[in-house]
Amino acid sequence: MKKQLYQVNLVERSYDIHIEAACLDAIGAKLRQLFQTQTRCLLVSNETIAPLYAKRVQESLEQAGWHVDQHLFPDGEKYKTLEHWSALMDTLMQSKISRSEPIIALGGGVVGDMTGFAASCYRRGIPFIQVPTTLLAQVDSSVGGKTAVNHPHGKNMVGAFYQPKLVWIDPLVLQTLEVKELRAGIAELIKYGLIRDVAFFEWLYVHIEGMLSLDADTLAYAIYHSCRHKAEVVMADETEQGMRALLNLGHTFGHAIESMTHYESYLHGEAVALGTIMAARLSEQLGFAVIGLEKKILSLYVQAGLNTVIPQFSAEQWIDAMGHDKKNVGSRIRYILMRDIGDAFIAEDVDNASIVALVDSFSG
Amino acid sequence: MKKQLYQVNLVERSYDIHIEAACLDAIGAKLRQLFQTQTRCLLVSNETIAPLYAKRVQESLEQAGWHVDQHLFPDGEKYKTLEHWSALMDTLMQSKISRSEPIIALGGGVVGDMTGFAASCYRRGIPFIQVPTTLLAQVDSSVGGKTAVNHPHGKNMVGAFYQPKLVWIDPLVLQTLEVKELRAGIAELIKYGLIRDVAFFEWLYVHIEGMLSLDADTLAYAIYHSCRHKAEVVMADETEQGMRALLNLGHTFGHAIESMTHYESYLHGEAVALGTIMAARLSEQLGFAVIGLEKKILSLYVQAGLNTVIPQFSAEQWIDAMGHDKKNVGSRIRYILMRDIGDAFIAEDVDNASIVALVDSFSG
Repeated sequence: MKKQLYQVNLVERSYDIHIEAACLDAIGAKLRQLFQTQTRCLLVSNETIAPLYAKRVQESLEQAGWHVDQHLFPDGEKYKTLEHWSALMDTLMQSKISRSEPIIALGGGVVGDMTGFAASCYRRGIPFIQVPTTLLAQVDSSVGGKTAVNHPHGKNMVGAFYQPKLVWIDPLVLQTLEVKELRAGIAELIKYGLIRDVAFFEWLYVHIEGMLSLDADTLAYAIYHSCRHKAEVVMADETEQGMRALLNLGHTFGHAIESMTHYESYLHGEAVALGTIMAARLSEQLGFAVIGLEKKILSLYVQAGLNTVIPQFSAEQWIDAMGHDKKNVGSRIRYILMRDIGDAFIAEDVDNASIVALVDSFSG
Repeated sequence: MKKQLYQVNLVERSYDIHIEAACLDAIGAKLRQLFQTQTRCLLVSNETIAPLYAKRVQESLEQAGWHVDQHLFPDGEKYKTLEHWSALMDTLMQSKISRSEPIIALGGGVVGDMTGFAASCYRRGIPFIQVPTTLLAQVDSSVGGKTAVNHPHGKNMVGAFYQPKLVWIDPLVLQTLEVKELRAGIAELIKYGLIRDVAFFEWLYVHIEGMLSLDADTLAYAIYHSCRHKAEVVMADETEQGMRALLNLGHTFGHAIESMTHYESYLHGEAVALGTIMAARLSEQLGFAVIGLEKKILSLYVQAGLNTVIPQFSAEQWIDAMGHDKKNVGSRIRYILMRDIGDAFIAEDVDNASIVALVDSFSG
């Protein structure tokens, strides 16, 4: 597996995405190079990931002269709360980490989101390093600077736009990932093809087996191009004033699914895949896309082993759940729809009657 | 009193500071002009200010077609906590304020800091308007985008750099301000003279009586030039990488005083005045400033009616309290010292023995 490097260019907030097999053991030296005169850092992970990888990361850091404190979250989206974030803030205070010393997120999207939000708030912002350990985090949440916690009123409702100083990706850590998580990550990879890269979508069609069998070069290629797509969109629209919203393809319906099932039944990527199926059918029903779009997407999801059965809720439940989504402007629900594979767009004038018809078409 | 306007230029985060007598009644029309298609806003204040001014602001907003929700904090620095911030987040969620609708802080520094931090986090950032009602907030905390809450481990330890969309200053509201608060605000005005404007310091010497008697033109002049100084420094160094730290003159000692007295005995401006006296004496003792600097500053503070008696704590207590200050880089305590009136600088190599000697010189 070759080393891949992508530079996210956001002027004074620029940073590198580094993708390399076994780079977990080189993080200490890299941070020593980035922060030459600092001495302390805080390593944040969860109770599932820490036994697998925290020791290696800590040893690499200590060998490079870092004094390392640790903070562990319980594992799971349901712990992505202000309460657990506040516990991390307490650890930061006790560690007396200064404004110039880094905090490192070793884990999936939940660890990254909570650590990033803590990094943005502690002393009004300290350096933040992403070491993502799930495919979903490697290709999506670790890049772009969206950080947040959930609130009883909705997902990711409390957070900040706060860019990391470095994203450090070791594809070999995916070997310990549950296959369910791997498939959920693939759903996010597919999303980039659907939004803006039909060639990548076709490539995935051919290479999905290689990804599922964790072929090293296949994974590195897919991760690199996903990060590139994510970064290109973020560079064009860091704080989601416009086109960054395209990345939310499948998310309006997907977040509603997660919320209606209390974040207990579906992984984020699984919910997004289901949401994308709904967005595809809605695009067809409203006449934006040719008939067959949903079927093409479904076929790739099935190959990836993803669940494609839309859960049953009333149209009223769907609309109410989507009304709380933070991407809405004013009281309008905003949908990301597709004209074709590789050609997504923002639709703000979808009426509720269309949603009723859509939900109806999935019922029974 | 004439209308004064200063534009803070921070590229896409630019905003106006508007200073005008009775402008409280024009806020609705101004926000209608800034946010043409929005309908809802949240007005945040405290239990002391709301009975005096919230009704006028609410009426002005409603006349311009705004639907206004309100959230009130108890009055006081001791309520500037994550817990009370979290209550405001809950109100925001319940109000269903969208990403594009504004939140308005009507009050002093505590209301502004907590509302600003909530604005920065809710849906990862919504528009935020400052309507400061204390002199200190009008000349300091409402400008520049520092938002935060306190933590048991230190003042302003959890927060964000987040600029308002507008600062709307009505000097007439100072008529209901306690004289103690007015004097504390004057301490911050004096700070700008000490840091970078000897002529302003001399002007204050002459006009301190006019300020204390709330002469309208005198106040407007002083507020305008203070905002200008604050904005110029912020424009040069928004996130305090360098010279913005000069604004913390008196704050290293001042925060320690506030922390050691549990935020109960001194207003922020009072503590900063005492901290500035200490910084002046330290500047003399270390040979940076000529003898007489402390005396000149003391004399203006006395004219302003400020307390100039340094509270008694051991050198160990001082150093420990300052060690928690968030402005420190690494484990070093950073002091802002003066060469002369109008000429402050950052000193990072002050040893603890000098602090012991300084504290000793104030004892008994």
